[in-house]
Amino acid sequence: MTRPPTRLATCAHAIAAAGRKLAAQGLTPATSGNFSMRLDDTHAAITISGRDKGTLTPDDIIVIDMEGRAVGTTARPSAETLLHTQLYRRFTEVNAVLHTHSRTQTVASRLFAPAGVIRIEGYELIKAIAGHTTHATHIDLPIFANTQDMPELVERVDVWIRTDKPLYGYLIDGHGIYTWGRDMTEAERHIEAFEFLLGCELDLRRSQT
Amino acid sequence: MTRPPTRLATCAHAIAAAGRKLAAQGLTPATSGNFSMRLDDTHAAITISGRDKGTLTPDDIIVIDMEGRAVGTTARPSAETLLHTQLYRRFTEVNAVLHTHSRTQTVASRLFAPAGVIRIEGYELIKAIAGHTTHATHIDLPIFANTQDMPELVERVDVWIRTDKPLYGYLIDGHGIYTWGRDMTEAERHIEAFEFLLGCELDLRRSQT
Amino acid sequence: MTRPPTRLATCAHAIAAAGRKLAAQGLTPATSGNFSMRLDDTHAAITISGRDKGTLTPDDIIVIDMEGRAVGTTARPSAETLLHTQLYRRFTEVNAVLHTHSRTQTVASRLFAPAGVIRIEGYELIKAIAGHTTHATHIDLPIFANTQDMPELVERVDVWIRTDKPLYGYLIDGHGIYTWGRDMTEAERHIEAFEFLLGCELDLRRSQT
Amino acid sequence: MTRPPTRLATCAHAIAAAGRKLAAQGLTPATSGNFSMRLDDTHAAITISGRDKGTLTPDDIIVIDMEGRAVGTTARPSAETLLHTQLYRRFTEVNAVLHTHSRTQTVASRLFAPAGVIRIEGYELIKAIAGHTTHATHIDLPIFANTQDMPELVERVDVWIRTDKPLYGYLIDGHGIYTWGRDMTEAERHIEAFEFLLGCELDLRRSQT
Repeated sequence: MTRPPTRLATCAHAIAAAGRKLAAQGLTPATSGNFSMRLDDTHAAITISGRDKGTLTPDDIIVIDMEGRAVGTTARPSAETLLHTQLYRRFTEVNAVLHTHSRTQTVASRLFAPAGVIRIEGYELIKAIAGHTTHATHIDLPIFANTQDMPELVERVDVWIRTDKPLYGYLIDGHGIYTWGRDMTEAERHIEAFEFLLGCELDLRRSQT
Repeated sequence: MTRPPTRLATCAHAIAAAGRKLAAQGLTPATSGNFSMRLDDTHAAITISGRDKGTLTPDDIIVIDMEGRAVGTTARPSAETLLHTQLYRRFTEVNAVLHTHSRTQTVASRLFAPAGVIRIEGYELIKAIAGHTTHATHIDLPIFANTQDMPELVERVDVWIRTDKPLYGYLIDGHGIYTWGRDMTEAERHIEAFEFLLGCELDLRRSQT
Repeated sequence: MTRPPTRLATCAHAIAAAGRKLAAQGLTPATSGNFSMRLDDTHAAITISGRDKGTLTPDDIIVIDMEGRAVGTTARPSAETLLHTQLYRRFTEVNAVLHTHSRTQTVASRLFAPAGVIRIEGYELIKAIAGHTTHATHIDLPIFANTQDMPELVERVDVWIRTDKPLYGYLIDGHGIYTWGRDMTEAERHIEAFEFLLGCELDLRRSQT
Repeated sequence: MTRPPTRLATCAHAIAAAGRKLAAQGLTPATSGNFSMRLDDTHAAITISGRDKGTLTPDDIIVIDMEGRAVGTTARPSAETLLHTQLYRRFTEVNAVLHTHSRTQTVASRLFAPAGVIRIEGYELIKAIAGHTTHATHIDLPIFANTQDMPELVERVDVWIRTDKPLYGYLIDGHGIYTWGRDMTEAERHIEAFEFLLGCELDLRRSQT
């Protein structure tokens, strides 16, 4: 993948627009969340750490290499940059990564953390996740224990990846969700679908009699 | 019913406006939902498959015949087109059909699927459903099992219709609601009323002590 | 109270503005709700039956006398007009009446209907209800059984009024709330406060362990 | 801290903007809530009592001294002014104080009042509270009994402060939250984080099976 000259501008615009949309939906409380897109085989564009996601502009986006180091800037990339580059390195078809922190995502992660996974089944909206053409299947969304040690967190995710089990997104306990797509449109559809499906799971749990 | 020359433009405008409104209320997550209006005895206008309902324009609406085939376009109509045409064929007074996917609709469908029906009674808002002039009655909203086989799903709905029991809308398990009206205004009032009534039923269930 | 020449225009503007605001907050699903203001000792202004409250304009407001009859128009006033005129006749200090239908109001009315009253106590926001200067008190919000027979419903409310117990608003079972104020600002503050307080009561009930 | 000539105008603008934002999020029902900023060592700017927080302008902000008396105006400061000045007097690093009344804050205060404190732990978003760099810690949010006697309420808060236990915010039972920051940006981040964290705690409590 060679990078066209306009690729950075296009991605920065798309990241900022996605961030503002997700912030308006309440998914990024208190400057949380971070978003990225692949620029080429060895670089990605990612949000600067700590910015208010509701007012993102292309100026809040910087270039990183696949080791998570900022390129051509003194601005600091998101603390969780290595979780983004892991996905670009491991999955060549991934070109956009979104991480948010909604109340639904946070509560679901804590409730299901003891099980280590949330099994989602029986929903028509499973078809919104890439590669699914029927509701008559299930998706397992793993939940990894939280840590401030990024290499350790990367390793926790890698353990799952090395099993070759399907992976469309994951939760970090008490923290939020990571999901991705072939392009930003697909990544946004995935985060919208997972937010909806986790909300349904919480509602069902609260409504059992 | 002869089709006036402006009927398609009028319907496409009304469908797009209704879709944007329902999307803004969160009823169509991740491009779900589809909407239609009858054009004449043998044609309807319906949303193209997979479009983001929040940004619908008349260009996202195509013509179909009553067998659900696209007319005069290579665009693909919504996968569930046959559920729309079934209603136009079976109920001559129906001129608008709305299908949405809200969290409330989805959760209610799953909770009450074992019973096969949700009985709604005791609400003043029952009067918002066509033909009702008092709260002192009930409405039975059936829940059909989901399937990707559209003719099979059509047949499940038809079994209910053939019993001649009243039908103002129905849920598909894990999937969403279908409702309709003599015109788009009535169909929109029905979907707003059912969304409200199902939300109340879920809240009551959660609040029993 | 003599009616200044501009009183109708002022009231129609205030009613339409309040209606649009309450509709935007989701308190008037499917054209429900109705709103009025006193014009003079023998007349009030009220919303026309069945209008979408989200797009109210002064043209949707008509004049009624205190027997609930439309004056100078063939438009039909809200079906529940007599509940408004009862308040203007019984309470000379009341100049604005609001009736809404939120999910919270409807669910609270059904849950507490067997008790006939919701006792609200322990909230700072009680001070938002006219005449209250401390949280260390309570407000009893009665719940009357619903009926389509307006004179009967008026009588149910009147039974409470004749006891001389304080009355700041009331619920109708499965239906919604009525509240009022010396002016529209106070009536709007009351409906905002009751919506909040009923929401807290439902949340508390759901959170007991 | 000497007060620059433009300090009052800057603060009044910042307070009004923060108030409108918090009101739009539903945190200030029925004119509740009050907001302030430190002007210099002996003065602060604070919202006038009873104003609608959704339409705040700099004209709704007045100057008070550290005894809570209005300076250069006949307008009445918020009834709870002494709770603001207490924070400016006790904590020299505090330059902005926010008090809101959300349904989540009110319900949480009532549920946890018997314990006197809500312990918040296990959330990544703890890092949004100043001085926290890891989720692997906890924050204790005290809940004080409500009273209309402001000096008494000030004393209840002061008892906690004198213990030298950390204090990032507190709840008043049935009433709402107080939190603050070195500047308005930090105070807003704190209120957004506490609203989120309290919401998660309520959801977890409701979802236990």
